[in-house]
Amino acid sequence: MRKIAIIGVGHVGSTTAYTLISKNIVDELVLFDPKENILRAELNDLMDGQMEQTHQVRLIEPNLTELKDTDVIIFAAGDISIFEGNPDRFAELNLTKTIVEEWAPKITESGFKGIILNITNPCDVITQYLQELTGFPRERVFGTGTSLDTGRMKHAVSHSLNVHPSAIDGYVIGEHGESQFVAWSSVRIGGVPITDILTKEQLTALDAAARDGGWVTFRGKGYTSYGIAVQAARIAEAILNNNHLVVPVSHYHLSESCYVGSPAKVSQQGITEQFPLSLSDVEQEKWQHTIQTIHSMHATI
Amino acid sequence: MRKIAIIGVGHVGSTTAYTLISKNIVDELVLFDPKENILRAELNDLMDGQMEQTHQVRLIEPNLTELKDTDVIIFAAGDISIFEGNPDRFAELNLTKTIVEEWAPKITESGFKGIILNITNPCDVITQYLQELTGFPRERVFGTGTSLDTGRMKHAVSHSLNVHPSAIDGYVIGEHGESQFVAWSSVRIGGVPITDILTKEQLTALDAAARDGGWVTFRGKGYTSYGIAVQAARIAEAILNNNHLVVPVSHYHLSESCYVGSPAKVSQQGITEQFPLSLSDVEQEKWQHTIQTIHSMHATI
Amino acid sequence: MRKIAIIGVGHVGSTTAYTLISKNIVDELVLFDPKENILRAELNDLMDGQMEQTHQVRLIEPNLTELKDTDVIIFAAGDISIFEGNPDRFAELNLTKTIVEEWAPKITESGFKGIILNITNPCDVITQYLQELTGFPRERVFGTGTSLDTGRMKHAVSHSLNVHPSAIDGYVIGEHGESQFVAWSSVRIGGVPITDILTKEQLTALDAAARDGGWVTFRGKGYTSYGIAVQAARIAEAILNNNHLVVPVSHYHLSESCYVGSPAKVSQQGITEQFPLSLSDVEQEKWQHTIQTIHSMHATI
Amino acid sequence: MRKIAIIGVGHVGSTTAYTLISKNIVDELVLFDPKENILRAELNDLMDGQMEQTHQVRLIEPNLTELKDTDVIIFAAGDISIFEGNPDRFAELNLTKTIVEEWAPKITESGFKGIILNITNPCDVITQYLQELTGFPRERVFGTGTSLDTGRMKHAVSHSLNVHPSAIDGYVIGEHGESQFVAWSSVRIGGVPITDILTKEQLTALDAAARDGGWVTFRGKGYTSYGIAVQAARIAEAILNNNHLVVPVSHYHLSESCYVGSPAKVSQQGITEQFPLSLSDVEQEKWQHTIQTIHSMHATI
Repeated sequence: MRKIAIIGVGHVGSTTAYTLISKNIVDELVLFDPKENILRAELNDLMDGQMEQTHQVRLIEPNLTELKDTDVIIFAAGDISIFEGNPDRFAELNLTKTIVEEWAPKITESGFKGIILNITNPCDVITQYLQELTGFPRERVFGTGTSLDTGRMKHAVSHSLNVHPSAIDGYVIGEHGESQFVAWSSVRIGGVPITDILTKEQLTALDAAARDGGWVTFRGKGYTSYGIAVQAARIAEAILNNNHLVVPVSHYHLSESCYVGSPAKVSQQGITEQFPLSLSDVEQEKWQHTIQTIHSMHATI
Repeated sequence: MRKIAIIGVGHVGSTTAYTLISKNIVDELVLFDPKENILRAELNDLMDGQMEQTHQVRLIEPNLTELKDTDVIIFAAGDISIFEGNPDRFAELNLTKTIVEEWAPKITESGFKGIILNITNPCDVITQYLQELTGFPRERVFGTGTSLDTGRMKHAVSHSLNVHPSAIDGYVIGEHGESQFVAWSSVRIGGVPITDILTKEQLTALDAAARDGGWVTFRGKGYTSYGIAVQAARIAEAILNNNHLVVPVSHYHLSESCYVGSPAKVSQQGITEQFPLSLSDVEQEKWQHTIQTIHSMHATI
Repeated sequence: MRKIAIIGVGHVGSTTAYTLISKNIVDELVLFDPKENILRAELNDLMDGQMEQTHQVRLIEPNLTELKDTDVIIFAAGDISIFEGNPDRFAELNLTKTIVEEWAPKITESGFKGIILNITNPCDVITQYLQELTGFPRERVFGTGTSLDTGRMKHAVSHSLNVHPSAIDGYVIGEHGESQFVAWSSVRIGGVPITDILTKEQLTALDAAARDGGWVTFRGKGYTSYGIAVQAARIAEAILNNNHLVVPVSHYHLSESCYVGSPAKVSQQGITEQFPLSLSDVEQEKWQHTIQTIHSMHATI
Repeated sequence: MRKIAIIGVGHVGSTTAYTLISKNIVDELVLFDPKENILRAELNDLMDGQMEQTHQVRLIEPNLTELKDTDVIIFAAGDISIFEGNPDRFAELNLTKTIVEEWAPKITESGFKGIILNITNPCDVITQYLQELTGFPRERVFGTGTSLDTGRMKHAVSHSLNVHPSAIDGYVIGEHGESQFVAWSSVRIGGVPITDILTKEQLTALDAAARDGGWVTFRGKGYTSYGIAVQAARIAEAILNNNHLVVPVSHYHLSESCYVGSPAKVSQQGITEQFPLSLSDVEQEKWQHTIQTIHSMHATI
């Protein structure tokens, strides 16, 4: 039985639950949320939503003892709907770090032996804080990081070049936040370097389009849900299915002494391999900058 | 190319869009909503959400000329999030009927030749009004009706008897509203009449559980989304796939001179056959009552 | 990790493996077959076939120690391609019982603690023999039984009435062989008894059509594969997903002292509940006849 | 309605049909085969196999008038099971070219306006011959080409490096036959050039493993089915879904005056863009060699 717990069923946690159920990724799902009536509503609506499918997910009431044999915790706590995209990441951090402080001991004491996948923002710093407070091995705690941003880059490129996203090989790396960047030097379309196809100006425009995309969603809906839910669900699937997917997640970089997003291999044991991209000089500078941003944010905790 | 238009992308319309995309039911999707920024947000988030799947849906900007070759219009307009479950169905009707009055001529003039599937509440009366104002053949305009309520009944029975929902053969019929009822006399579990398994009191309790379910969701979230989205998506799939699915939808009953929910066969041509359940005396009374309720509501338009 | 072993990768076993992989039902799959080169071929072709999907199944070389933590054994051994549908079921039994005698001790000694799902024919007697020789609890050993025949009945009815198969509620019960029969008295279409829709002559014709279907496939291809693979896969899914599906499988009937097909609830613990259909007098006679057929065949072992 | 015709329902055509049905890629499927009893068997078994799924495919009896509104013809005629992998490609060509000569006028006269996707071997030459005899625009006739070989390369690399196939960006190009080759210079794993990870000797060993894979399957089963069926199905899906997938297919290269496999963009209009890989000197030589091989084979027609 594949068992996942989701901590926090706001729009992101709830849509992630729906995606896990719709795509047959999980058999047992435990939901936690401090808002009892919202929790009951989501449990009920999710059950209604699976009445016509063969695959049935057992939806479990919140209980810390359930974590003992849970395979993956998806950490989606915090008031993501208010803070996501907000320039004042420090205010957000002040809120979400206290939730980590509340949950880390609960998770540790539950006897949980699985993987923690963090979505809560600021993603890199919160993931690191979760690892520090739980004391779990670093490979078993990681965050969705720039997976969503990579999706947004593919959205922009796919739209611009009229090509299926699977033909786009490349990554957004760095902080899941303003200092992230597309490593254009290694993006390829159908095996052809994108730098051979588009000018620097066009790439800069795509960069902006990808970044704006998130804002368009956030400003219109007040949150983002489908993009992030799909990424969280496929990373969770990679863990449960032990399929060695390579995905840009926020994981610990020994050389940088922090969590930051870059492509890594995900399996049942967590992160098992890094794929360090060969960066151009300009990209190297951006990488240094994003690392510093993460460090300075982490220092405020 | 399978093409669907969704009119209204509140929680219900948006979740329906996400479900259609996730389950590979559609190839082209046109979204309409008066709130421009929400529309842009949903279009963007839905695109982000399909970057990792093979099947890609072309998301199309709102434009009435797109309706000309659209196969199915899903009508989810109105402020469902505020009104669903509200006891004052008349207030709701006052709002949603004006939206029908706005949209019916637009649909007619667009040259649309497909099927209208209505979700907007009060479902039965609004579906009828949509048919009346568009003048489309009755078989080509129908509503989700008691499909969601049937799902909720299956949820309650499945939970109570610990059995897969597919083993439950039976329907909730009547108004999608307070006067609906489970036709228990024809519900069977694995071929065995449920009246042989449970007492009348137990059935009454299940009735209440199914009904309360919707309220639990509505009171907690302020709307319901997954349950209804899944039903709308599978009915839309039945139309596009022409698969002759039998589902309890709100369709025109000649004998009752109104739209009301009961099992019917759905194909590319719309409703092609009714399956009149054999009702007990008590159920017959409930049926008469629900028909009257619909008539009296329709009379206020 | 959901782990299945398939014993015998002829057309049925191989197509079942492909179906399990395509439908994301399994994470680890162990294949056994005495024909080494065919085994290697299937392992290789199945791997080639999953290169483009996200969900990856670990295909495992045959090794009895793998059975220790296997959840489900699908027993598809025997030369099904030659014998299926052959009127001389006794000749078939002579072959397949020896394979059971070979495998039962291997399974027992492996420390296997899961469920055995038997496909090998004659299905009812072989399933019983597998239970007897392994000594496993009866609820943990069962066969696909009349699930395929029920599918064929739905195929015939669906085609005749132009209705989606999910609208057909009913079962073929008895021996998976010539003495099986449709329990027409409990078949319903969209909640309406089929006996209200079709005449006795029409039902007899449908009976023949369903039965002939299997022969058409067998005579043309020399075996049947898709129909049975889909049934085996969904029963395996029901076990792994613990979803309490009700399906007509060959399981032990205490009252009849033998294995025979009738609707039962399938969960992770195996068979947990029976759903005894209310039969007409004629059907009761057929039931007695099919039980006798199974008993007399079992007596020859 | 998405409509596909499959010409030839041997193991490849039949498994492709099953895959299209299982993965909800098609709504209507017309099957053609000169062996009437096999055709009936497959039609019947495929119907039995879809009784438990929501999505239903209308399986249509062979009739040339059906091609008029068919979207895609999958050409899988010929005795693939005997010839695939046979070193004597010329003998195979002698057989399959006569089948093309039989079918080309039938297709042309039917009023077919869609895309032809050829699987029949020798794939490149037969695809070209199909285009020449039908006179259809070159972009509307193409073959599965090296898509299967690319899958086999990914199988070998994925197994060797223990990495999910989606992390492998690269292609096998050239003839679908002995002269094909992996363009290693552009293969990357998680964005890292494979030439940085493996030695030339290791790459040569992987080359051999990929090539041997096909032989292992062919020698064991007498044919290959799952690998090729999955590729054909996803290319057909790309056409129907108009999703601009980039896939290595056999399509016309103006510069080489022949059909040959290399990455190209597939849409509803067929091939709409090529992605010419930057080859190393050694690879350039291999490319010239494979082009010559195709030319000399085509010259014998």
